[in-house]
Amino acid sequence: MTQANVTQANEPASDSRWDGLILGASIATLDADSGYGEIADAALAWRDGAITYVGPRADLPGAPATLAREVVEADGWITPGLVDCHTHLVFAGDRAREFELRLQGASYEEIARAGGGILSTVRATRAADEGELLRQSLPRARALLADGATTLEIKSGYGLDFDNERKMLRVARQIGDALGIRVRTTYLAAHALPPEFSGRADAYIDAVVEWLPRLHGEGLVDAVDAFCEGIGFSRAQTRRVFEAARALGLPVKLHADQLSDLGGAALVAEFGGLSADHVEHSSLDGVQAMAERGAVAVLLPGAFHVLRETKLPPLAAFREHGVAMAVATDCNPGTSPLLSLRQAMQLACTHFRLTPEEALRGATVHAARALGLANRGVLRVAARADFVRWQVGHPAELCYWLGGTLAGDVFAGGRRVAGAA
Amino acid sequence: MTQANVTQANEPASDSRWDGLILGASIATLDADSGYGEIADAALAWRDGAITYVGPRADLPGAPATLAREVVEADGWITPGLVDCHTHLVFAGDRAREFELRLQGASYEEIARAGGGILSTVRATRAADEGELLRQSLPRARALLADGATTLEIKSGYGLDFDNERKMLRVARQIGDALGIRVRTTYLAAHALPPEFSGRADAYIDAVVEWLPRLHGEGLVDAVDAFCEGIGFSRAQTRRVFEAARALGLPVKLHADQLSDLGGAALVAEFGGLSADHVEHSSLDGVQAMAERGAVAVLLPGAFHVLRETKLPPLAAFREHGVAMAVATDCNPGTSPLLSLRQAMQLACTHFRLTPEEALRGATVHAARALGLANRGVLRVAARADFVRWQVGHPAELCYWLGGTLAGDVFAGGRRVAGAA
Ligand SMILES: [Zn+2]
Ligand SMILES: [Zn+2]
Repeated sequence: MTQANVTQANEPASDSRWDGLILGASIATLDADSGYGEIADAALAWRDGAITYVGPRADLPGAPATLAREVVEADGWITPGLVDCHTHLVFAGDRAREFELRLQGASYEEIARAGGGILSTVRATRAADEGELLRQSLPRARALLADGATTLEIKSGYGLDFDNERKMLRVARQIGDALGIRVRTTYLAAHALPPEFSGRADAYIDAVVEWLPRLHGEGLVDAVDAFCEGIGFSRAQTRRVFEAARALGLPVKLHADQLSDLGGAALVAEFGGLSADHVEHSSLDGVQAMAERGAVAVLLPGAFHVLRETKLPPLAAFREHGVAMAVATDCNPGTSPLLSLRQAMQLACTHFRLTPEEALRGATVHAARALGLANRGVLRVAARADFVRWQVGHPAELCYWLGGTLAGDVFAGGRRVAGAA
Repeated sequence: MTQANVTQANEPASDSRWDGLILGASIATLDADSGYGEIADAALAWRDGAITYVGPRADLPGAPATLAREVVEADGWITPGLVDCHTHLVFAGDRAREFELRLQGASYEEIARAGGGILSTVRATRAADEGELLRQSLPRARALLADGATTLEIKSGYGLDFDNERKMLRVARQIGDALGIRVRTTYLAAHALPPEFSGRADAYIDAVVEWLPRLHGEGLVDAVDAFCEGIGFSRAQTRRVFEAARALGLPVKLHADQLSDLGGAALVAEFGGLSADHVEHSSLDGVQAMAERGAVAVLLPGAFHVLRETKLPPLAAFREHGVAMAVATDCNPGTSPLLSLRQAMQLACTHFRLTPEEALRGATVHAARALGLANRGVLRVAARADFVRWQVGHPAELCYWLGGTLAGDVFAGGRRVAGAA
């Protein structure tokens, strides 16, 4: 970090002082193509929600008390706020009982008879009114913030009809308002076939495509997603959903190639989409297509862990072709009951052998890119003042510990939104 | 629960009132050989650190306000306080950097050259004075409490000389005092060969055996452990340590059969030991010997997860022969950086396919037995008032979620020691 980043005059008038200034911690800016961008004995300042200074404390342009209205001494490490770019955290009920039945040896049929599976979540989500759905979902978002997330993506996809998809998206927006953070909403009506459309998947896609502009018109949709899989929707059906998104100028992303290679990665690339997510079974062609169009590969090690999968995503090919890899929780009640992005990073290192630096980039700057957000996931002047002060001696600890309370302070837009300290 | 468990008169005099009474939550007493021992709309009361009532609210022998000095309405589930029966949480430094080097592809030799491995923890632990060692270790114990632990076992084994083993055990006792919980200390000088004894393992065991009565004389030792493994100590050396323990009337336990079958399980049984821990490679003979002598099998899924092991412990044989299975964090900086026993339960279900009920018994009543403690790990009248109120709708959720803050209130001996609510 050099003086060039200092945007304030040497002796700012009191009305132009920074809102806050943290001194003494180490900072991992991630503001370069590789390495943590480490600054020891650093200073970080912000004003009006944006970063105004990040660099060595010794290079500050004046005495701290003259520079900012609030000055704090701190230790530990500061990183960009974490960005969870793939969650299904708005839902009602949970599936812990189904999890237990499975471990007791129940068959798929027995679980279905006991009311399990994704359609049990659809039933519970439809039955909950908006207030109840918010009441059940908000603690999950709070848990993600408490462990360092400052930006969340939230998908619909358990409503599967117009009113209930709308209810989910409205609750996602309300979560952002309640917590003072940015929530990116994703329309995922093409998540599963609702019972009333049983055997009529194409007719359901007609409905999905018809609902989209109405929900978009209410400002509820930031992006569009689908579940392209043998047990989900076909490539042709996914293409129809993507075309509807394109007609509205909405970016697309995809649950792609999780259980088999349906060419989902290439389809995302064809539409200039933000990301292909899961991608365990993506082919080399798919990887190359993603690289050409700059699509992000979103790795979801929580589902890999819970489902005890063994097929790894094509990590070497992603690295070789320069496909950015993000890491997300996939927080959902069936296959990834993760309430911490830091724990997803731990699982990415353990199961996928990501380095801690890759996992941290994957949960910050690359995740921001997977959401089409440019000014976050990195600490530099003019970026959003989203950052976390961790009670650790090295950033690799974020991927090392399972459990524990590491996030001392969590700031979003220059305001403290969570933290233990 | 029946009226027979109610030990108080119908209208107690004010000086005999219970200290506390919680109403309305569901309770998993675990007070039977199988099942959660569920009581819906329950009441739990305690006095002088022990449980005085556990049963349906409707069966309380009077109006709540007349029965206890403090009465609280609650929701969620109450379980026995968790018992972490195998930790190495007293140490200095961490090994996050070594974790990172390994993921960057560094060889064993490169890591050793960079100062990694268990001896790096020994160096750091020796270099820290007692206050510094407490300062670094206490947050780990606090993290375990925050996720529901009310009893901790803590091993020595990074000092490897008299003064430093003593320092570790003293710090373990201080942690118990600081947090208001019971810490069981375990003498594990036979953990690794210190550099000053290089090539002289038998001479080191002479020293280990000589230090034991001195440390026991200071009240620092509740049990004795060793690392019996090709890369640790032999069966014959372990036997000498166990004989020294027996001479003092101290119970033994063992790091047994983790990487290979050295007959550790059978050795524990021969000495009537409390537990054989790890036990991935234990033979059927070992399992049968454990069953005959009532030794507990302590499963440590954290190390299994971090080391990406594939050899499962002989779980079917443990079940068939009635060997109680405990679950513990193994909290240590090299192979199991776990700061949550609940997350160890999650890993036990995921990797070992324990049922959530087995995992909960493993982290409560069976873990208490692995420490030789009879009056905890279960909720019944006269047991210690160690319990957790979890913010969940079903006890299986404890093993289902990764991350999150589920422990609303954590009580040890009838006093609140942690909790989010
Ligand atoms: Zn998903
Ligand atoms: Zn151990």
